[in-house]
Amino acid sequence: MKIVIDAYGGDNAPQEIVKGALQALKEKEGFSVVLVGKREEIEALLSSETYDAERVGIVDALRVITNDMSPTEAVRKMKDSSLVKAFSVLNSDPDAQAIISAGSTGAVLTGATLLVKRLEGVTRAALAPVLPTVKGGFVTLVDCGANSDCKPAQLVQFARLGSAMVKATSGNRSPRVGLLSNGTEDKKGNELTKEAFPLLKAETGINFVGNMEAREILSGDYDVVVADGFSGNIALKACEGTALAFMTILKNCILAGGLRAKLGYLLMKPVFKEVKKTMDYNGYGGAVLLGLTKVVVKSHGSSKAKSIAASVIQAYTVASAGVSTSLEL
Amino acid sequence: MKIVIDAYGGDNAPQEIVKGALQALKEKEGFSVVLVGKREEIEALLSSETYDAERVGIVDALRVITNDMSPTEAVRKMKDSSLVKAFSVLNSDPDAQAIISAGSTGAVLTGATLLVKRLEGVTRAALAPVLPTVKGGFVTLVDCGANSDCKPAQLVQFARLGSAMVKATSGNRSPRVGLLSNGTEDKKGNELTKEAFPLLKAETGINFVGNMEAREILSGDYDVVVADGFSGNIALKACEGTALAFMTILKNCILAGGLRAKLGYLLMKPVFKEVKKTMDYNGYGGAVLLGLTKVVVKSHGSSKAKSIAASVIQAYTVASAGVSTSLEL
Repeated sequence: MKIVIDAYGGDNAPQEIVKGALQALKEKEGFSVVLVGKREEIEALLSSETYDAERVGIVDALRVITNDMSPTEAVRKMKDSSLVKAFSVLNSDPDAQAIISAGSTGAVLTGATLLVKRLEGVTRAALAPVLPTVKGGFVTLVDCGANSDCKPAQLVQFARLGSAMVKATSGNRSPRVGLLSNGTEDKKGNELTKEAFPLLKAETGINFVGNMEAREILSGDYDVVVADGFSGNIALKACEGTALAFMTILKNCILAGGLRAKLGYLLMKPVFKEVKKTMDYNGYGGAVLLGLTKVVVKSHGSSKAKSIAASVIQAYTVASAGVSTSLEL
Repeated sequence: MKIVIDAYGGDNAPQEIVKGALQALKEKEGFSVVLVGKREEIEALLSSETYDAERVGIVDALRVITNDMSPTEAVRKMKDSSLVKAFSVLNSDPDAQAIISAGSTGAVLTGATLLVKRLEGVTRAALAPVLPTVKGGFVTLVDCGANSDCKPAQLVQFARLGSAMVKATSGNRSPRVGLLSNGTEDKKGNELTKEAFPLLKAETGINFVGNMEAREILSGDYDVVVADGFSGNIALKACEGTALAFMTILKNCILAGGLRAKLGYLLMKPVFKEVKKTMDYNGYGGAVLLGLTKVVVKSHGSSKAKSIAASVIQAYTVASAGVSTSLEL
């Protein structure tokens, strides 16, 4: 299996992307990577590393799509960009099963939409990040931004796609699916979720447990959270922002707390490090674009080597579980 | 000015409601309270307290609307419930300017919708909680649940109502209004926000600063966050859930951290208490229902005396600023 990597997408490209790719190779067998981007620079970065040369390929691409470019224009016009070239390799090489990019989310989504074949029956692919829960497990949020406006039937597809990925990548045979709403009662919701509710209830093959509030996303009581992309994006970003706010307020209170507080902080430093590590969902991988015939992973823009390595291994796990090819819709 | 209080709404009623009302009287002059509920029980609670009897009235109401009742049915049929009776006092007593309840949100919203006159031009009232920001200020989120499906023009009303309340209750003459979206670029959003954007931009009298992501709600860069009620509710509940998750994970890491971590925790206890107090938005008051001719404050269901006292003072502040009566729409 080959995993294609956009070596020039993201704030810390190409150094951290290359480092992360090599880290993944050390952590797991069974696949090789294709680094796409400026060949000379990549070769220079590789020259100072030790790695199995048989497992690393390079494909040259001189240009880079940046966050400020219009995604659709960039994808259509910049065929020699690292991202578009990477999609091209994904499609043309029969061994290529997955692609990773930490570049512009818009460009990755557009590229995937225009260039990667969808599974039969899938209306639109959905972006699914995986978040840690307080019970030590994970929850998959589908959709978190690929589809701002959805039809009820799409939410059912999100439920099926999310469930399939969770089943394939964990021991969980019956992932609990919750529909993100503004209350837990069956009658709650907006027009979209009220129409989707009975469809989800009627769907065999998924374990739909009902409406849920955003307060419960990280509770560990749900394995898949279904939402339209706009609502999902709000939920995800609100979680991120609150975690950051919490840490900022904590820091301010420590600084204002005098010697005792600072001493306590020093003693608790390992704990804070552990909390940060636990809550940083980018440490577990990227967001998987569900519903395509190949695995597309969008890593966080600010990803460093650790997140990239996690994304590569995540892509390997999802691809080898055959999620993309075996999903019945 | 009289502030009417539903003494039997909420998990800790009537004890904490009565205590909170008396606390508010101690903290501020200029108003009196009317406690609505079972007269005998309220009198018994008051008998063990010291307070200015001139500032406390009681109106008898024998029944209580609970969370499991259908709000519309309860409000229509239970005229002798503490909540409906409180609305009745609010409407019949010319000195009554505001009502507080910690009861069922559905019932409070329904009661307000059916029983309190809207300001001219207001389509639907909106529920606006006030959250603390990392810069030590506050942000008002409009709407967080009264209107699950909105039209673009309603979002503009939310912006105006929120701005008016912030202007009236703080020194801020030009509250920065952000439109909750899935990106900051002008073109981002779903169908609703894309239609609302130009309307907000064209609206004189508000300081519309553009689209914003949910990650920035608590940043202190916005004073009013505008969203349809479904999205606003998701944002609010996601913030709550993440703060709770953070504290749970922190606690788990401390317990697993051994002696050093526990010692550090003991030293940092005052800091954690301060953080919790800062982030607990219920400590600042309740959610104000904007767009009505009287002030309606929905306190959190689990409110204790401190939150109730804060809600009463908040209601007093909003009412004396004349927000309800002077808003031009």
